[in-house]
Amino acid sequence: MDVAVLAASMTPFGDREAWVNELATEAALACLDGAGVEPAALDHLYLSNMASGEFEGQTGVMNALAHDIGAVPAYAQRVGQTSASGGAGLYAAWQSVASGASEMTLLVGAEKMTHQTTGEAGDVIASLTHPTEYAHGVTLPSFAGLAARQYLDRFDAPRESLAHIAVKNHDNARKNPNAQFRKEIDIETALASPMVADPLRLYDYCPVTDGSAALLFCPASVARQYTDDFVLLSGVAGATDTHVVHERDDPTWMSAVAQSGEQAFEMAGIGPEEVDIAELHDMVTLLEALQLEAFGFAERGEGWQYAMDGTTTLDGELPVNTSGGLKARGHPLGATGVAQAVEIYQQLMGTAGKRQVEAEVGLTCNVGGFGNCVTSAVLEAAE
Amino acid sequence: MDVAVLAASMTPFGDREAWVNELATEAALACLDGAGVEPAALDHLYLSNMASGEFEGQTGVMNALAHDIGAVPAYAQRVGQTSASGGAGLYAAWQSVASGASEMTLLVGAEKMTHQTTGEAGDVIASLTHPTEYAHGVTLPSFAGLAARQYLDRFDAPRESLAHIAVKNHDNARKNPNAQFRKEIDIETALASPMVADPLRLYDYCPVTDGSAALLFCPASVARQYTDDFVLLSGVAGATDTHVVHERDDPTWMSAVAQSGEQAFEMAGIGPEEVDIAELHDMVTLLEALQLEAFGFAERGEGWQYAMDGTTTLDGELPVNTSGGLKARGHPLGATGVAQAVEIYQQLMGTAGKRQVEAEVGLTCNVGGFGNCVTSAVLEAAE
Repeated sequence: MDVAVLAASMTPFGDREAWVNELATEAALACLDGAGVEPAALDHLYLSNMASGEFEGQTGVMNALAHDIGAVPAYAQRVGQTSASGGAGLYAAWQSVASGASEMTLLVGAEKMTHQTTGEAGDVIASLTHPTEYAHGVTLPSFAGLAARQYLDRFDAPRESLAHIAVKNHDNARKNPNAQFRKEIDIETALASPMVADPLRLYDYCPVTDGSAALLFCPASVARQYTDDFVLLSGVAGATDTHVVHERDDPTWMSAVAQSGEQAFEMAGIGPEEVDIAELHDMVTLLEALQLEAFGFAERGEGWQYAMDGTTTLDGELPVNTSGGLKARGHPLGATGVAQAVEIYQQLMGTAGKRQVEAEVGLTCNVGGFGNCVTSAVLEAAE
Repeated sequence: MDVAVLAASMTPFGDREAWVNELATEAALACLDGAGVEPAALDHLYLSNMASGEFEGQTGVMNALAHDIGAVPAYAQRVGQTSASGGAGLYAAWQSVASGASEMTLLVGAEKMTHQTTGEAGDVIASLTHPTEYAHGVTLPSFAGLAARQYLDRFDAPRESLAHIAVKNHDNARKNPNAQFRKEIDIETALASPMVADPLRLYDYCPVTDGSAALLFCPASVARQYTDDFVLLSGVAGATDTHVVHERDDPTWMSAVAQSGEQAFEMAGIGPEEVDIAELHDMVTLLEALQLEAFGFAERGEGWQYAMDGTTTLDGELPVNTSGGLKARGHPLGATGVAQAVEIYQQLMGTAGKRQVEAEVGLTCNVGGFGNCVTSAVLEAAE
């Protein structure tokens, strides 16, 4: 069955004076409104969220959302895959429609984080890693530093290549009214920002963010009853890698990205060369380079060149993170994977405003941990 | 597509000296071993769990499970639906197979709770309710007291009718080697136990429990390559009710049970009269009576009679909670919905030992909150 994305929306990302369910409701109602679909028409509702229990003491968030938007008695479920919860939500929503269980599925990703200190939020985020790593201080930011050092040394990449990824994504975010950071930065600023985990500095990392995003799924045959302009989720797949990162043969090779990408491409019947635009999981700058390689967009050891040489800039051959990415659009954990697909939807629909590029096929990649679990998705404009 | 349950297993429930991932691994490996399926053959892995982040500071539990049982690179996702996470897992696993996304899906439900005090665990459980209710002291146990008083008064039901449900389920648990409480209780003991929320007493409520349960799903055509003896998940559906319980017209009518049941029956092509055995969500004794009514097994206001008059005892017309139910088998939140289906699987396969009944069609009902979200499932012996 062809599964359609009928509508998409997102809230402004950033420091929001709203709780997770207010954010989720805001994105959900905007999405339904955009499609002209009543809440009562929903069969299934999925809420991608990593840690509302830890952040806000609320675990019934999917039931609250069904209640608040007027979707009761629709089935509601929370989808968890740590920082890849949004991508897992895409897969869950696809399965709900493709299995015939639902003819109208709303996926909402949401997270409220900024009421916590960075340290408090960091403790919750660290809970996604294996306890043996955490005990040795190998949190995600510190591990990224180790991996970046190895990558730069091994492939003879200049330190500033990673800064170019941050600069590019900030530049894109300036054109995205929903992005958290809509300010230009330059290479010098990025390279002079405070050290986090040598060689990585503050501007290599995504921020702590509040926000929500939503997508509406249905069979393509149902979508055509509403409009001729929609998007197809033509490929989606997920894969795991070792949960203990040091057990990997090569920590700079993202095998779950490669495997989920291969499956998603196969399902869509395309190869990486047919992708026009991609939203990759730049939790840290390095990861954007590693994902370019794992998907086969770049040769092994050459992903670092793409932001520097302009391949992945807005006017490049393969624009990456036109939204601003996690780095500058922001990273409200469970919302990110959904927001990635919202960006692709808007680009394919031609509604991306100042950051619009020409694209007919887009890719999203949402990463849990350091590639511990990854969901990749291919979206295409419906013909 | 006919979706098969190829194997089922559960750990002993109770006070376990093991963390959630050790419990999940124990159930998962026993399930795979029972089917003769290698971990490497898994496509998808779902872990139903309510609150491992809150209980143990671990949120990457599905990735840890994939890692620990040797299933990497299988896709892994955590399924959340508060105390109905296990039932939601049945639905997610069904969708993964029915959509064609997976040909071999392992569902594991697990929760580790007993290292917390009852107060600490209660605070986490209370997070599934609407904050406005919690602020007024309307936690699940206290709400159950209010609802029980209304039910008993309105339908002229004797107080001891609810005690009969507890006595029946304890009696069944004596015959279940994996049950938490394998001791007989009598009506007098139940009625003399400490008051929790008038008129309900300690023996009306389920305990705090550690445990895990697992089920292996695949297309029926694949199942036949392994064995002729398996079970079909022939109906499964979920529904929500208001997340604020006091907004319901009638708090003693479980509309999400009724709606998910109707859908599951329709999908299976049967009616309640064809069900031979049911595992209902007796978080509190009253709920078993309310579910009997919502599914149409009993007339409105008559569910309380069924344990008293023997209809739902092991040798009755419709044995309910042959496992011991949440009351006596125990209620490790995310594991319960999976364990319910494990019990039906064993009954349909004729491997339920001393509690074996004659059954070809079984029903499970897993409830989140006070019916805020419910998943119902119909299982049948394959022919």
